[in-house]
Amino acid sequence: MLIVKKFGGTSVADKEKIFNVARRCVEDYKNGNEVVVVLSAMGKQTDLLLAQAREINPNASKREVDMLLTTGEQISVSLMAMAMNSLGVPAISLNAFQVAMHTTSVYGSARIKRIDVDRIHSELANNKIVIVTGFQGINSFGDYTTLGRGGSDTTAVAIAAALNADACEIYTDVDGVFTADPRLVPNAKKLNEITYDEMLELSSLGAGVLHNRSVEMAKKYGVQLVVRSSLNNSEGTVVKEEIKMEKMLVSGVAADKNTARIAVIGLEDQPGVAFKLFNHLARHNINVDIILQSVGRNGTKDISFTVAEDSVEEAVEILERHRAGSLKCHKIDVEKSVAKVSIVGAGMMSNAGVAAKMFEALYDVGVNIKMISTSEIRVTVLIDEIYVEKAMKAVHDKFSLA
Amino acid sequence: MLIVKKFGGTSVADKEKIFNVARRCVEDYKNGNEVVVVLSAMGKQTDLLLAQAREINPNASKREVDMLLTTGEQISVSLMAMAMNSLGVPAISLNAFQVAMHTTSVYGSARIKRIDVDRIHSELANNKIVIVTGFQGINSFGDYTTLGRGGSDTTAVAIAAALNADACEIYTDVDGVFTADPRLVPNAKKLNEITYDEMLELSSLGAGVLHNRSVEMAKKYGVQLVVRSSLNNSEGTVVKEEIKMEKMLVSGVAADKNTARIAVIGLEDQPGVAFKLFNHLARHNINVDIILQSVGRNGTKDISFTVAEDSVEEAVEILERHRAGSLKCHKIDVEKSVAKVSIVGAGMMSNAGVAAKMFEALYDVGVNIKMISTSEIRVTVLIDEIYVEKAMKAVHDKFSLA
Repeated sequence: MLIVKKFGGTSVADKEKIFNVARRCVEDYKNGNEVVVVLSAMGKQTDLLLAQAREINPNASKREVDMLLTTGEQISVSLMAMAMNSLGVPAISLNAFQVAMHTTSVYGSARIKRIDVDRIHSELANNKIVIVTGFQGINSFGDYTTLGRGGSDTTAVAIAAALNADACEIYTDVDGVFTADPRLVPNAKKLNEITYDEMLELSSLGAGVLHNRSVEMAKKYGVQLVVRSSLNNSEGTVVKEEIKMEKMLVSGVAADKNTARIAVIGLEDQPGVAFKLFNHLARHNINVDIILQSVGRNGTKDISFTVAEDSVEEAVEILERHRAGSLKCHKIDVEKSVAKVSIVGAGMMSNAGVAAKMFEALYDVGVNIKMISTSEIRVTVLIDEIYVEKAMKAVHDKFSLA
Repeated sequence: MLIVKKFGGTSVADKEKIFNVARRCVEDYKNGNEVVVVLSAMGKQTDLLLAQAREINPNASKREVDMLLTTGEQISVSLMAMAMNSLGVPAISLNAFQVAMHTTSVYGSARIKRIDVDRIHSELANNKIVIVTGFQGINSFGDYTTLGRGGSDTTAVAIAAALNADACEIYTDVDGVFTADPRLVPNAKKLNEITYDEMLELSSLGAGVLHNRSVEMAKKYGVQLVVRSSLNNSEGTVVKEEIKMEKMLVSGVAADKNTARIAVIGLEDQPGVAFKLFNHLARHNINVDIILQSVGRNGTKDISFTVAEDSVEEAVEILERHRAGSLKCHKIDVEKSVAKVSIVGAGMMSNAGVAAKMFEALYDVGVNIKMISTSEIRVTVLIDEIYVEKAMKAVHDKFSLA
């Protein structure tokens, strides 16, 4: 088997942790597997380097910031190779130039274009464990780039795809993907399997152990992922295209408290009103989530929508600025103490009544629904923030996820 | 003018020092020069990385150690580019891959083979200050190498040669090359000029502000060096092939206390005795300096020689081991409290009596000479360590160096 294993910064934060990871990889190697390891920078190294850059130049060029940050993973991969060597196993570290890992040219948020596999293959053929820097690439100018948030996961998936690996294991500090956040729903259960689409919905709902980009890439290239703990040997969760026939209706419940509702009351009932409203917001890069339009009094209409809590002030300020001009309305209301609760499951596509079952669960515990939004494999409701835990437990129980 | 400027680790140890260097380079740039800057790793960074490696694996592979160490210069060049940018000047950092800087494959002590200059030229053509990592290279396997002690000086000279630069400035914490160590000889004088050969003799005598390798390379490619202070604007010392006609007989006086004398007494007077003796030492990589052979008692001969103080124990141990076998002798004496004092000067080549004048100076102050060694441009004597200062001052005055 050819196995790609990815470990994040906390898994390589010190000598002891580096050796834990090394032993884990050496075990696979000694069982006859070819092993490629992808690492992030140690612990808080990236943050420390960024602080150093800010001290020198608060507006440092992104090209130079990437040049600085890429040293972080180079340190962790070389130390890991030394650790594996000291365990008696041949290992070699490679950075983005050595692989080479070709990306687009956008510093700070580059996308992987192509990975040369010759060097990795020849080192594997030499019976070495190959340790590759995550998060970084090189662009067509021959300069370092970084992939942005979740970058090392993406590196691992891209390498697994390029090598046609048999497995791609993403190690985290939890046992896998759960039916709900175990801190909020104590009887939440670890999922053994989940589809790419379900994983995508869950990560975009803030419940993600994987970044969307890596899941999207895994889906595109059919790379089967395993999310598992670096702290123990439990099986983890397999993320793949199709899961077994007797699949569950609902895979998980997620909550997102970072949301606020804005209600624009008493808009003129004319064509183009909604367009104008959301165009103002889009031009300031404010992302709008759930939208609800209803008929108001005296031939007017009301439009409500949710935004992330940290952009609510700016959104209201923009709307107030246009009230006298293009946006005639009676008043603008804001409600911050709201939260989204969602159920996700590939099973609900072909199954009517899933949404109704969720609403029933909330009714049973007296939680009022303020807004509703649905996709093919997701139902989201907006409720008062104080009821989040109660709502999650009720929904979780209703779908017998525990 | 195209100027290559090299700054060591202490010159870029913190934010303030980085900006000092940046301002100095920006000044040259604003005066219309093309500027290439070569940097070492910040302060004690290289030592810290080595300590981290030793903690993980005391016998870490040199390949991985170089992979680790090369992050040091990459950090300093990227931060320097940010500093210059914040002073409003376009600058770009380049590492050994980006230049590219081709070396032999010997990790830890590689030698520069070839430098590609296209990238540097095109960045200079874009009106940028180009900041290059010193000390590091890449070998034919596409792996990082490091150049060993004095590596960044060598990088600077090699780049100056490859670019056919008009000047190569090596910045240190002293004002230049002195006629003697100012801590030992208070009236020592800064030299305005010195030849490559004189500089080579001085550095090998422990008085060097430049490493021999960089001076050898400068001589080979005719790169005129300037050694000057990073702390002030004084002129420094120019190192070049020929200096002005009215050159001094003697350029400088140097002392080296790191030496010990071993005397092998009562060897058989037969062919091959000296060969056997020094062959034993050479096979253990022990460098022998001054050698003196004299006739001993009863048809035997005595051989005395000096070695560095930290290898004297090993040398004696090796010789004792062979005493019963190939190396028959009466006894082996060791004297550790000795020191070498040397005068160096291209002028002495065509000038008889220079050595005699030095011996006279020592006689005047009652210092006994234990051994003598000469080259075309150097006279070295071995004396008791306690007389070093007195001897240096006497010689310095005799040749009117102050």
